[in-house]
Amino acid sequence: MNVYLDHAATTPLRPEARDAWLRASETVGNPSSIHGGGQAARRVLEDARERLAAVLGCDPIEVVFTSGGTESVNLALKGLWWARADVSGAIVLPDGEHHATLDAVAWLHTHERAAVRAVPLSPTGRIDEAAFAAALPGAALATALVANNEVGTCNDAAALAAAAAAAGVPLHLDAVGAFGHVPVDFGRWRAGAAGATGLCALSVSGHKVGAPVGIGALVVSRHANPTALLHGGGQQRALRSGTQDAAGAAAFAAAAERAVAERDGEAVRLAALRDRLVAGVRALVPDAVLLGDPEHRLPGNAHLLFPGVSGETLLFLLDQRGIAVSTGSACQAGVPEPSHVVMALGRSETDARSVLRLSLGRTTTDADVDAFLAALPEAHARAAASGARARERS
Amino acid sequence: MNVYLDHAATTPLRPEARDAWLRASETVGNPSSIHGGGQAARRVLEDARERLAAVLGCDPIEVVFTSGGTESVNLALKGLWWARADVSGAIVLPDGEHHATLDAVAWLHTHERAAVRAVPLSPTGRIDEAAFAAALPGAALATALVANNEVGTCNDAAALAAAAAAAGVPLHLDAVGAFGHVPVDFGRWRAGAAGATGLCALSVSGHKVGAPVGIGALVVSRHANPTALLHGGGQQRALRSGTQDAAGAAAFAAAAERAVAERDGEAVRLAALRDRLVAGVRALVPDAVLLGDPEHRLPGNAHLLFPGVSGETLLFLLDQRGIAVSTGSACQAGVPEPSHVVMALGRSETDARSVLRLSLGRTTTDADVDAFLAALPEAHARAAASGARARERS
Repeated sequence: MNVYLDHAATTPLRPEARDAWLRASETVGNPSSIHGGGQAARRVLEDARERLAAVLGCDPIEVVFTSGGTESVNLALKGLWWARADVSGAIVLPDGEHHATLDAVAWLHTHERAAVRAVPLSPTGRIDEAAFAAALPGAALATALVANNEVGTCNDAAALAAAAAAAGVPLHLDAVGAFGHVPVDFGRWRAGAAGATGLCALSVSGHKVGAPVGIGALVVSRHANPTALLHGGGQQRALRSGTQDAAGAAAFAAAAERAVAERDGEAVRLAALRDRLVAGVRALVPDAVLLGDPEHRLPGNAHLLFPGVSGETLLFLLDQRGIAVSTGSACQAGVPEPSHVVMALGRSETDARSVLRLSLGRTTTDADVDAFLAALPEAHARAAASGARARERS
Repeated sequence: MNVYLDHAATTPLRPEARDAWLRASETVGNPSSIHGGGQAARRVLEDARERLAAVLGCDPIEVVFTSGGTESVNLALKGLWWARADVSGAIVLPDGEHHATLDAVAWLHTHERAAVRAVPLSPTGRIDEAAFAAALPGAALATALVANNEVGTCNDAAALAAAAAAAGVPLHLDAVGAFGHVPVDFGRWRAGAAGATGLCALSVSGHKVGAPVGIGALVVSRHANPTALLHGGGQQRALRSGTQDAAGAAAFAAAAERAVAERDGEAVRLAALRDRLVAGVRALVPDAVLLGDPEHRLPGNAHLLFPGVSGETLLFLLDQRGIAVSTGSACQAGVPEPSHVVMALGRSETDARSVLRLSLGRTTTDADVDAFLAALPEAHARAAASGARARERS
């Protein structure tokens, strides 16, 4: 049997999204063409933009379609950096951000001489709000995760945005892991911000909510004007040139609407499944530790530390039983590294190699939880024995 | 009836591509995940990469999937600029390039202080090879279209690549409009190049060959190491981070294979249709002029100048009869501008507003040509009368 507990890496394509994609694909025309076929594709595209804006709490013109979360984050950070008011300045960067953010900021640091102001996380993975606010004055821009993609900890996005607005600093929020699981409301979070300060940009990705891979969006405040990464035909306020993907946009809108409509009910259902899973793990492996925040947490996220056991070995052993889990972000191209997020919680590198992320989603059932709990004892015992042998040898 | 003569803007999704996309979409897993589902998605992705490499004449590791032609061109030009050997330098830029190239180079000029060395076109739109070669010595990089997307003129890509190799300059070729219509062979064109010089990068786009919008590729020589535009998880030699679109890649490979398999036969069929169309236009509108090159030309391209007549008016009148044509590139976000390509041929701005691009493709039939020729006289007469009235008023 196949048990998929890696919905945070990617979640199955929703039937509504597939149908919307197929329907839109029958419209032959480039949305930038002015003939009837082009205008039909344009209507599909703009309808999708309006529907996505409605669920994100922004105006349609503020939705800039991209190829996904990584492009959205890069456009926000590099674009806001290049468009910053002062030519010097620093970027406010919490610990434990996604690699798209970390690596884009690292490039801005080495290549564009951006200074970086790090902000620590609490032991449960929350961005320290006081430290964040203290780092803001005079910064060129700030960025923050709405919900951490590994340990699932949710930040107080409204408070972070209010602090950025008060300090007059442009803020990007990475909502890739949060959207569809907890409320994401650009308009509410931007409230009180003036011009190109406060919440200016917010990243979301299609395939995390059941749309196809290859479509995402950056919400860009109408008051902000980040420099484009992709220059060309001038589409989308000239913020993102390139032929617009009407079919992808339609699929994204369909998936996002459904995900948001189901969100509160699913949050209750998945949190219950997740809590049962965590309780079951603790009963089977008493020294297992739930990392992340007990209260402010994505409903489908269980992030577990198995002391002294290689998360990667555990992953392989579970995979042999048809159970798909992760040791952290899927975005590190298959290279096993200790989780920088776990280390940002104050844990050791050994601990950061001893974690599993279980992420539940739309298709997760009680049977999946049962199957995981049935497979865990043997997998854990074998992984623990393997770890003990490795320590003896070294 | 609907007559689609704008295949250069986008061409209908091929059934093989749609089926490959649907099949791949059933595989649940992020190709960067190390569990079985992820590895299944990875196999779909790498199979597509191998098949695309085979039809492009490169190694699989040289295929970097992107979101489309605009991203590929931007990655090539900005990436090669940032990775250039010397910190000064110039970009060799032929006239009449696509807006993705023009606007990326313009940004590198204003933002990154790149110098630009323009290379003129012949009156038929060919890049002047002697002028191109003369501009190369000491340049940081050069770029060129394999086939012009508006007037359809094909350049001697092998000669341009050989000149770049001889001069020791990295070259990017934009094959977006050429791929699937005329031979594109990265390996052959790169022959004789050493290290990161000569042909280093080549852009192609999926939706121009019957794949979905939203997938494209940049072939990047294994010897070249352009700076990434999108930083993050380190996928694809860290040249292009972001969750990889296995379904889009599979669809692209299916469409590209079919397009290349049919290419020579379609070239004969479409050129015959195109020649009949052009002969018919000349019989009906004796002062119409075929722009572009009579010999070195995309088989499906007819680019016609109707002196004294607004191309846009003609487009609208034809559109009312269900006939979809273009005044030039579709990539200018619907803003009517005189064609910079037509002006690069030495034509006036008035001429550059008096053109229609008819682009034939896979679904084009004799009946489409007949319908266009049946509709043209009235549309042309009305557009000419409208133009005459406008000139009287002014």
